[in-house]
Amino acid sequence: MHVFYTPDITSSDYILNEEESRHCMKVLRLVTGDVVHLIDGRGGLYEAEITGESKRNVSLHVLKTTSEYQKRNHNLHIAVAPTKNIDRLEWFLEKATEIGIDQITPVICERSERKIVKEDRLNKVITSAVKQSLQAYHPMLNEALSLKELISHHSADHRMIAHCVEGEPRKYISEIAPSGSSYLILIGPEGDFTPNEIQLALQNDFKPLTLGNTRLRTETAALAACFEVNYLNR
Amino acid sequence: MHVFYTPDITSSDYILNEEESRHCMKVLRLVTGDVVHLIDGRGGLYEAEITGESKRNVSLHVLKTTSEYQKRNHNLHIAVAPTKNIDRLEWFLEKATEIGIDQITPVICERSERKIVKEDRLNKVITSAVKQSLQAYHPMLNEALSLKELISHHSADHRMIAHCVEGEPRKYISEIAPSGSSYLILIGPEGDFTPNEIQLALQNDFKPLTLGNTRLRTETAALAACFEVNYLNR
Repeated sequence: MHVFYTPDITSSDYILNEEESRHCMKVLRLVTGDVVHLIDGRGGLYEAEITGESKRNVSLHVLKTTSEYQKRNHNLHIAVAPTKNIDRLEWFLEKATEIGIDQITPVICERSERKIVKEDRLNKVITSAVKQSLQAYHPMLNEALSLKELISHHSADHRMIAHCVEGEPRKYISEIAPSGSSYLILIGPEGDFTPNEIQLALQNDFKPLTLGNTRLRTETAALAACFEVNYLNR
Repeated sequence: MHVFYTPDITSSDYILNEEESRHCMKVLRLVTGDVVHLIDGRGGLYEAEITGESKRNVSLHVLKTTSEYQKRNHNLHIAVAPTKNIDRLEWFLEKATEIGIDQITPVICERSERKIVKEDRLNKVITSAVKQSLQAYHPMLNEALSLKELISHHSADHRMIAHCVEGEPRKYISEIAPSGSSYLILIGPEGDFTPNEIQLALQNDFKPLTLGNTRLRTETAALAACFEVNYLNR
């Protein structure tokens, strides 16, 4: 069934905006009487019928509402250094949304080659994955922060830093944190965190994390952490 | 350290081909005395010193050899329907190589929109991921097969089909198979397998598999299976 993202839905009647209306009529060729899915991004999943057609305003009436659809028993926040090639970060956002994530913060590290990200564009990637994978909860993309800001401003029951320093003691997520908890996981840039950054994180109760014994790219490491937390919480 | 893929290495002296030599001299700007990594794709990891420079033939001498580098205690074969947008399959190949996979077979299903793949190009993607992630074993990319051919020609201790039919009994990999085994996992096209295809797989001892309760794209499902088998075998 076709899915529309309607974060501003408040009643059982809703009118699609111009862009979505055009998509609904012109691309999907839907007509009055057709039933579609609506997602509000806050856990609401709706079955709605098209009650009025127009290229600019398609009106819908909600037939069935499901609240807290597939609500997770945990909260996952991944803070990841934006990749030099932004496609790789966008790819991570799409996949993490499909698999399950609550919050993403681009974190600028000493070795980050990319210091600026366009949140609007990244949010579009997340929204389209939300629709494609029928996620009732829209992951929150926070503004980019420096590592120092992130460490001092954000909190979670279990905070971890996935660094790549050989020989340093590191544990798997499942050895650090239980299920049903909240997790903040730091993923570094190409070239890893600096020793000072690792030091700072450890001083602030971030536990050193390993994702296995293979060399993973930044976006692969971030997705591996996402898979693992979701696996832990099945 | 820089990594070169040298599947034809047989002795402690090796000469890079013209393309690799040019890359070594012109791009990486390496010189006599520099030490690099070589990977033979069959488990061999070598530390080698540059003994002679030339734009066409860079000669190397092996200083140290490691056999069966990071040899896995299991064997993972994923047979996946090629995605309509080939970038998505290439992306899967890169990520699966980073995380750990032994064999990939593109499998053409009834609902496959793409029936042809260029193995050469896909193999280049795998090789570059092998080098990037320092994998001593080069995953094998098999020729594309029809689902029927795959089911009759290929075998593994544990064979699974990840279909999306709601309400049908399906289990997680960890409930179907133990660690340290060999696994063949079928991942269907956009639009899923047909009922006939699922029937055929089940008749041939493929166990129905679930990868969780979210809607995953073909390449995401394939990677989820790859993560899960590697997780199971830690």
